[in-house]
Amino acid sequence: MTNQQTPEQILQVGLGFWPSKVLLSAVEMEVFTKLAKKPEDLETLRERLGLHTRAARDFFDSLVALGFLQRENGVYRNTPATDLFLDKSKPSYIGGILEMANLRLYPFWGGLTEALRTGQLQNEAKDGGMPFFEALYADPTRLKEFLKAMSGLSRGSNLALATKFPWKDYWSVLDLGTAQGDTVVQITKAHPHLTGTGYDLPEVGPVFEEYVKENGLSSRVKFVPGSFFTDPIPTADVITMGHILHDWDLEEKKALIAKAYNALPSGGALVVYEALIDDERSKNAFGLMMSLNMLIETPGGFDYTGADCQGWMKDAGFRETRVEHLAGPESMVVGIK
Amino acid sequence: MTNQQTPEQILQVGLGFWPSKVLLSAVEMEVFTKLAKKPEDLETLRERLGLHTRAARDFFDSLVALGFLQRENGVYRNTPATDLFLDKSKPSYIGGILEMANLRLYPFWGGLTEALRTGQLQNEAKDGGMPFFEALYADPTRLKEFLKAMSGLSRGSNLALATKFPWKDYWSVLDLGTAQGDTVVQITKAHPHLTGTGYDLPEVGPVFEEYVKENGLSSRVKFVPGSFFTDPIPTADVITMGHILHDWDLEEKKALIAKAYNALPSGGALVVYEALIDDERSKNAFGLMMSLNMLIETPGGFDYTGADCQGWMKDAGFRETRVEHLAGPESMVVGIK
Repeated sequence: MTNQQTPEQILQVGLGFWPSKVLLSAVEMEVFTKLAKKPEDLETLRERLGLHTRAARDFFDSLVALGFLQRENGVYRNTPATDLFLDKSKPSYIGGILEMANLRLYPFWGGLTEALRTGQLQNEAKDGGMPFFEALYADPTRLKEFLKAMSGLSRGSNLALATKFPWKDYWSVLDLGTAQGDTVVQITKAHPHLTGTGYDLPEVGPVFEEYVKENGLSSRVKFVPGSFFTDPIPTADVITMGHILHDWDLEEKKALIAKAYNALPSGGALVVYEALIDDERSKNAFGLMMSLNMLIETPGGFDYTGADCQGWMKDAGFRETRVEHLAGPESMVVGIK
Repeated sequence: MTNQQTPEQILQVGLGFWPSKVLLSAVEMEVFTKLAKKPEDLETLRERLGLHTRAARDFFDSLVALGFLQRENGVYRNTPATDLFLDKSKPSYIGGILEMANLRLYPFWGGLTEALRTGQLQNEAKDGGMPFFEALYADPTRLKEFLKAMSGLSRGSNLALATKFPWKDYWSVLDLGTAQGDTVVQITKAHPHLTGTGYDLPEVGPVFEEYVKENGLSSRVKFVPGSFFTDPIPTADVITMGHILHDWDLEEKKALIAKAYNALPSGGALVVYEALIDDERSKNAFGLMMSLNMLIETPGGFDYTGADCQGWMKDAGFRETRVEHLAGPESMVVGIK
């Protein structure tokens, strides 16, 4: 046994913050956005980014060896994937989530051991600081960047949701905690018979409406402002919640499911999606670690399995429930009233 | 093109500090050392480690999903690899390097962007703080733990070096910057005709001698105290330097190679090993990032390719040089005087 075992995987994961931080710093300094304009040699790229001569070559070559840049005859260029997803000037940019990870989550995850011992969050709100979302909603420019970042992260699931759910059987969809509105945009774009509503705090309205307009959907998609725990929510044939339930504790989760149930007509559907943990809790590492991220970020939030969510839906009165995979680590739970 | 590209690899690496920190916190809290004594159910393990009920289950199940623990009928146990390498009570423990990564490197790598822009180190010595090694050498218990951790990291290369070099052609070996002495121990253990010397700062002596004694090599292996830049070094047929040259700037590297050259007899060999960067600087990501780690940790250190090192050896007068792979990301450069 001893001879067959090597420590390589342990060391690779244990030092996995190295490649992670290399990529996060590259996104922070907009390496891919600059190279999307024009491939550059070492010295030009180094000067443009303002990097020190001691550091630049190892940094760029690390990005090459990690598969995020290509280098030919001394000229660095993006790979097809980094050009598409990490160039800020393209609508397909998903770097916003990595900018946030670099600025906030990397240092906050340094407090993981403390969080595990105390059950207490480790972000700005620790020790009575101002909660991140309060600060975010008070700053329209930052809020817009953040909401766009969330869209990038949800895009794959939203596209899958637009095709995998039987939308032909329904006339209207309401997205709770809609952010920029990518869920309702992708669904209504794919299904011209549907009307859509995005529901979120009033500050989100302008960002939502701009995005809907860009997508030519203003005639069928509208925004309704409100706070989903305290304000009434409009009715719709289908209510969607993506990456919402995991922010909240068990009572709050149940309250949101009950509120959706009450807003649906008989035969209506609730669609909840996120990185659902597998029922055995032994495979979807991303979903399990997302739950640890909720420990770091929220007072009581946690991720859950499809079985957990189906149970809560049954308790709320939904007569049929099912789980279906969407994209990557994400799945949806569907409940029929 | 667009449809074939997915952002999954970008997100996986960008959030790669999640699995990394989960493993580092598990090593910090000695999860594997406790489970090596006895597999435990959730509640027993949670209480033993003093974890909060909100956090424990997601944490342990993340370790299961990442492949570092197994869970059967609710009982958690180590995998064969984590039992061998992450149980503190076994000599095969390599967690010391991860303890250091958790305590020091994770937060210091948070300063990567600043290091890239300024070329300045980001560890304890930043802003005039006390350098890590000074503090370490002043504390015998911590020093011993650290030197053991370094052995764990070098073991694979040391075993390979003991078999891949033609030791039958030589009578003596001197290891410069020897730490606990694993290099000279593995080589002399495999070759009973050899005598060995470990050379390092005087504080290292007791730790070296204890380790040599444990391995039954005291009659053939001795310690010589000294500082390799300022003190003379003894002669030997072969001089080894593992994970030494990368700590230093170019002039210092050349000075160490020249010093080794002068200490060797004609026909003697210098063996330099570490995570050598491939000559194309496009494949060995670990070697390239180790060089960024030297940026974080030292005033002027950097990693290098086999071609770089062969060039410095030629300049110093070595008549023959070659590069040979050892283990994992590590290779050796051999120079014959």
